Amino acid sequence: MALKTLSAKAAAALDKELMSTGAFSLDQLMELAGLSVSQAVYRVHPIDRGRRILVAVGPGNNGGDGLVAARHLRHYGYQPTIYYPKRSKNDLYQRLAKQLEDLDVPFVDDFPTALQSTDHVVDAIFGFSFSGEVREPFPAVIQAMAETKVPVTSIDAPSSWNIEEGPPKSGVGSNFHPNVLVSLTAPKPLVKYFKGRHFIGGRFVTPAIAEKYGFDVPAYEGVDQIVEVGPGGLRL
Amino acid sequence: MALKTLSAKAAAALDKELMSTGAFSLDQLMELAGLSVSQAVYRVHPIDRGRRILVAVGPGNNGGDGLVAARHLRHYGYQPTIYYPKRSKNDLYQRLAKQLEDLDVPFVDDFPTALQSTDHVVDAIFGFSFSGEVREPFPAVIQAMAETKVPVTSIDAPSSWNIEEGPPKSGVGSNFHPNVLVSLTAPKPLVKYFKGRHFIGGRFVTPAIAEKYGFDVPAYEGVDQIVEVGPGGLRL
Repeated sequence: MALKTLSAKAAAALDKELMSTGAFSLDQLMELAGLSVSQAVYRVHPIDRGRRILVAVGPGNNGGDGLVAARHLRHYGYQPTIYYPKRSKNDLYQRLAKQLEDLDVPFVDDFPTALQSTDHVVDAIFGFSFSGEVREPFPAVIQAMAETKVPVTSIDAPSSWNIEEGPPKSGVGSNFHPNVLVSLTAPKPLVKYFKGRHFIGGRFVTPAIAEKYGFDVPAYEGVDQIVEVGPGGLRL
Repeated sequence: MALKTLSAKAAAALDKELMSTGAFSLDQLMELAGLSVSQAVYRVHPIDRGRRILVAVGPGNNGGDGLVAARHLRHYGYQPTIYYPKRSKNDLYQRLAKQLEDLDVPFVDDFPTALQSTDHVVDAIFGFSFSGEVREPFPAVIQAMAETKVPVTSIDAPSSWNIEEGPPKSGVGSNFHPNVLVSLTAPKPLVKYFKGRHFIGGRFVTPAIAEKYGFDVPAYEGVDQIVEVGPGGLRL
């Protein structure tokens, strides 16, 4: 049975509802989202496969999730490195970056070079609100992620993919197929084009909200903040 | 070897530093603190021992940690009930309470009655900033927690205990010995009077901060937000 998906428009409405009537702050939601991503990376890439994690951070909320994930990964014993070329002036993102600096996590400017000495990549460039063209400097970064043999974990969406229609037909991202996807709250329609390991994270959705948006609260186990589901959104 | 402890004054300074130069928001820290507590409860009281968890919530940050823990416990499949007699007007606490209401978590006014039909109690009344007298309506609540056979988990300090000197010599709390203690960031001096299962939580302290305050970052495992240490603060 295919998992129900959430359109880009519905995902935006859900986030807005969580932060208005749901009474969550963005700080809280991003902390839990990033924690989910860190747990998925730990699951697919245990520390003994290599500690070095390169996190590609975009300018919006997907990037913020990546910054939080990097901090938790650092506490687990990984050695994250951050590529964050378009730093937001938003107070929350600035604070998340400072928290990493206080853990001596390095920020680098040259993604292709950093990619040559990492064991895993987290793609936190664009999420469900992406549409249109990939802007500079990200085309080369996505191209590098498409071509590398280093495994890549994408947050919510492989960056450059259309949220409804999946990989672009041509150009940047058309050959980008990350190994792992962490869908936050619920999968987006693009999952039907995704063939790797697929997790759902974001264990804060109430049954009432899930019902309203037409999906089920995933069957998380124990204290896990993630649950693995089948590729393409099929249940395991 | 005894774990190093953090005085009430040092714990307050540490919190202040995390939220100023450390760039954390209270939302973030409380989310991670409450998550730690929820994981400790899951560890000592697995769901098959009974789903009903009564959370006694005080008016300050210790209470806020309890509200967050209750939410996570609800997501794990427990059935928390909240006793929260002195509701704060603080925006964050109001939002944390709303998040529980949206999960249909009941709030009750009568602690002794609620205690008769619960499987575990979380004591989130007072934390490291407590000193002096226990004010109404909490003396009877602490007395009930002291007398019950239901296991009790305290957050950071058994409520009514002096942070440096442990249980009061007489009166309210003098016979209160909770089964479990979750020390946040680092144990407080009172742990030397505590004989139950002891966890440390709050996996957000940087090595630099720990060194500055004279303690070690605990040896957390995997993605755990808690680590069990020996009773009285001894290492296991």
